[in-house]
Amino acid sequence: MKAKGYIQVYTGNGKGKTTAALGLALRAAGAGKKILFAQFVKGKIYSEMIAIKKYLPQIEIKQYGLESFILNTPTDKDIEAARKGLEEISSILEKGLHDLIILDEACIAVSFKLFSAKELIEVLEKRQPGTEIVITGRNAPPELIDIADLVTEMKEIKHYYTKGIKARKGIEY
Amino acid sequence: MKAKGYIQVYTGNGKGKTTAALGLALRAAGAGKKILFAQFVKGKIYSEMIAIKKYLPQIEIKQYGLESFILNTPTDKDIEAARKGLEEISSILEKGLHDLIILDEACIAVSFKLFSAKELIEVLEKRQPGTEIVITGRNAPPELIDIADLVTEMKEIKHYYTKGIKARKGIEY
Repeated sequence: MKAKGYIQVYTGNGKGKTTAALGLALRAAGAGKKILFAQFVKGKIYSEMIAIKKYLPQIEIKQYGLESFILNTPTDKDIEAARKGLEEISSILEKGLHDLIILDEACIAVSFKLFSAKELIEVLEKRQPGTEIVITGRNAPPELIDIADLVTEMKEIKHYYTKGIKARKGIEY
Repeated sequence: MKAKGYIQVYTGNGKGKTTAALGLALRAAGAGKKILFAQFVKGKIYSEMIAIKKYLPQIEIKQYGLESFILNTPTDKDIEAARKGLEEISSILEKGLHDLIILDEACIAVSFKLFSAKELIEVLEKRQPGTEIVITGRNAPPELIDIADLVTEMKEIKHYYTKGIKARKGIEY
């Protein structure tokens, strides 16, 4: 019988949430695990996606965001893309074929009301034994923190953004 | 002229510090950057090391810890290994050949007095333009936080360890 998988949440306003999830994916790949890296909200092809496609093609990638997403003003298309993604994750979780499923920026999707915390949790409840779930994004909803097995808050103590430094390719994206 | 590289620190008692550094390495690899992943204190071959060696051999790995390291009781050999590592990092930084250098668990090395914060910072000051440095580990010394450009505190809100769950291959190591 497969061991129960846990729900890990990485939230907070500091740098390191998506990268922590990527690191978990890399570690799990080293242990021969079957991994899905699903990303909400974001739709652009970042350096990490290029790296996975090129060097770790055994890690499946799904993107459920539009390239055009602008913070604060989600459109109907953004909502549609996120909801379609959550539906797909639901059926993937029911199948139980993965050891590790990352739902990158799913907290942001909830925060922008693309879907509700309740809808997300209902989907998470469909997971089968043996599937570990990692959820990232700022503003994790309290309901998610309640049901999670592990929660780390990435807290910004200092950030060079405040000095006017722009996001850099290969470091921030 | 190469842009100035920054010093990023990931500290705190929560899960996600080493994985965030690994994720940064993966992202940087996607952008074609030259990366060194150096690890203090730890000497075991974890799943992430296997993944890097197998799938991302362009990321250099150095381990400056002994397999036998036991928290709270560093031996002369632990100290020797860490100090030799710091010396090697010093000459690597002077050469300036890397875009990204990760000093995993360097904060722990300071915390266990394998070398001092002052010694670590003196080495960091040898970095050349274009080299970004990422330092991880609990108990980041205040002197390091002072000179860092970015600091994220990974704060444990909840952890399944407290429920008696043991570290799992492919997830924790």
